[in-house]
Amino acid sequence: MWKELLPLGRAESGGYRRFAWTGPDQECRQWFRAQAASRGLAYEVDGNGNQWAWFGDKSAENAVVTGSHLDSVPDGGAFDGPLGVLSAFAAYDELHSRGTAFTRPFAIVNFCDEEGARFGLSCVGSRLMTGSLTAEGAHALRDADGTTLPRAMEAAGHDPAALGPDPERLARIGAFVELHIEQGRALAETDHPLAVASAIWPHGRWRFDFHGEANHAGTTRLEDRRDPMLTYANTVLAARKKARLAGALATFGKVAVEPNGVNAVPSLVRGWLDSRAPDEGTLASLVAEIERAAGERGGRDGVDVRVTRESATPLVEFDHALRDRMAALLGKDIPVLPTGAGHDAGILSASVPTAMLYVRNPTGVSHAPAESAEEDDCAAGVTALADVLEGLV
Amino acid sequence: MWKELLPLGRAESGGYRRFAWTGPDQECRQWFRAQAASRGLAYEVDGNGNQWAWFGDKSAENAVVTGSHLDSVPDGGAFDGPLGVLSAFAAYDELHSRGTAFTRPFAIVNFCDEEGARFGLSCVGSRLMTGSLTAEGAHALRDADGTTLPRAMEAAGHDPAALGPDPERLARIGAFVELHIEQGRALAETDHPLAVASAIWPHGRWRFDFHGEANHAGTTRLEDRRDPMLTYANTVLAARKKARLAGALATFGKVAVEPNGVNAVPSLVRGWLDSRAPDEGTLASLVAEIERAAGERGGRDGVDVRVTRESATPLVEFDHALRDRMAALLGKDIPVLPTGAGHDAGILSASVPTAMLYVRNPTGVSHAPAESAEEDDCAAGVTALADVLEGLV
Repeated sequence: MWKELLPLGRAESGGYRRFAWTGPDQECRQWFRAQAASRGLAYEVDGNGNQWAWFGDKSAENAVVTGSHLDSVPDGGAFDGPLGVLSAFAAYDELHSRGTAFTRPFAIVNFCDEEGARFGLSCVGSRLMTGSLTAEGAHALRDADGTTLPRAMEAAGHDPAALGPDPERLARIGAFVELHIEQGRALAETDHPLAVASAIWPHGRWRFDFHGEANHAGTTRLEDRRDPMLTYANTVLAARKKARLAGALATFGKVAVEPNGVNAVPSLVRGWLDSRAPDEGTLASLVAEIERAAGERGGRDGVDVRVTRESATPLVEFDHALRDRMAALLGKDIPVLPTGAGHDAGILSASVPTAMLYVRNPTGVSHAPAESAEEDDCAAGVTALADVLEGLV
Repeated sequence: MWKELLPLGRAESGGYRRFAWTGPDQECRQWFRAQAASRGLAYEVDGNGNQWAWFGDKSAENAVVTGSHLDSVPDGGAFDGPLGVLSAFAAYDELHSRGTAFTRPFAIVNFCDEEGARFGLSCVGSRLMTGSLTAEGAHALRDADGTTLPRAMEAAGHDPAALGPDPERLARIGAFVELHIEQGRALAETDHPLAVASAIWPHGRWRFDFHGEANHAGTTRLEDRRDPMLTYANTVLAARKKARLAGALATFGKVAVEPNGVNAVPSLVRGWLDSRAPDEGTLASLVAEIERAAGERGGRDGVDVRVTRESATPLVEFDHALRDRMAALLGKDIPVLPTGAGHDAGILSASVPTAMLYVRNPTGVSHAPAESAEEDDCAAGVTALADVLEGLV
């Protein structure tokens, strides 16, 4: 399975560019469909484009669902997402070889556009299903070329007419378990190949628009400039310092400049802040402090700063009963870890008992080609997922 | 003339996007050719793509040449370049209506790709003619899409086979005068509509590559990051501060980020420094200080900084005799000003007696749509250019 999936959407850099509804994403989706077909699982795509492979009565209640996503960030690693989908199929195979009797419906899912690399909003497929993203919100999403999400779906051969909340489908899910590559180094220095998730930090994205005045870089006196690059630069450094003091995270990883000419003072610098903190109060006050710092510096630079919250995800605490049951099954000393990363599991946890299982990542690198996992650890992940599912199905 | 030229390559923003060898540039070149034809001037394009309109024996020595360029920076103003070409035609018309007898060959020129918006090097046409850019250097120039300069010329219907130094043509030029919109506010608060150029500050472009490590913005601890955005931001602020202390200019107006994802710590931030100073020693020590600041901060951020000088133009002092003659002709109290901006006149001045005439710009804005000129000041520019040319031809 892994060998067939590995080359899809891989760039020369070694990183993956599997953006929602593009060619590489379509190839990954064909792979999912073929995996379902080869096991005789009932394949379907819901109105939001999420793929499902069902065993048992898919219209019955209390289904056990596992899976993850196949899309990637720009130049992402091989494991983030795909490891969870692939391990779901492998764990299903393991249950069959164990002769497990299924008493509940079971499904493997590939959620659409988890990374938000193309339309700027993460977990689009699961947000739509749960209603945390509305149909109107989805219709307004545009990629960098101006293509809307519905047009992109259509271009990929998927009817966007049914985009929106799917409460009936959601109500039929009794439990969701997502296996995922670890995205830090918490396990790297331990003997544990696996961990169970405790919580996801609240997080969000804010777009900072720094409006200055375009001018000639060779003839405009420094004191006559309204240079938004200075305000942006100061805000980047302020965000880092304030995040450190708050025990939180703040990152400017994306920037767009107009006109972006070597000899032109920019008219506009747009920077995106990604910020996360252990609790919602800390996150709100951190972002407010960064905004204040940007505004103060903007005042000195003659630069107008406007901040738009593009997304916000509250604190997620995973289902305690399911988490404790998993910890008991997998050994009481298994680490139980929080994470700063958003996941479809985090979105679903508001509606469904949800749990996550992490597989050790020796480099700790995430969202980049150096992301890694040992084969033995991946095998341990599949076995653990099968153990957990066996106790549920 | 102006009305026909004004709409060409104008974007919705009101700014111009006339990049070398693109469609809008070709339209401007057709306009030049039509202007030459309507006056019965002998039209030719040299091996480097510069356009010429000749009156008199173009193979004779000691020609008087005037003109400027028609290309623009991204979202540039209407006057930077075109005002000089248009005023050249208008001054020629004025000389004819005065009945001026030409004793020397005379030409109007449109130099290719003065702004360097597409291939990253300014004054390509004049640099090639004078040999300060070699044919090999020109062949290595690539735009953002990877198209080389020769391929771009070919695609625009111009044979690139003769790209390179053109010493015979250069030797036939006895004087070059370029009229240009002022690029600052030195005249805005005076009663003078015009000024004569004294010098062009030495200037250059340096590419700073900040190499860090891509990682997940939500899961990588701050202390585990190698975030090049921090090093870049610190360098932007250091450059501004050090330029202010040196009485010089330093600008980061262009930046490119990889992978440029909201939730990814970048692997690479590339920033371009444009710097200019009153003398070469000041410029060299300023850039060295900025490099040192970048390296020091990079050491703390775990970021590797590499600096590449992409272009360098030495101090230009315009021909003293020609300058004094112009000042005497135009009134002894006419301001004589240095500038931080590069021009084809600056390139030519190493080989040919060269002078520049500036027309007042009330906003002082340059390389942006708010660039401006009053009609009366433009008319005064044409008259002054005709007066200067009358004394030369």
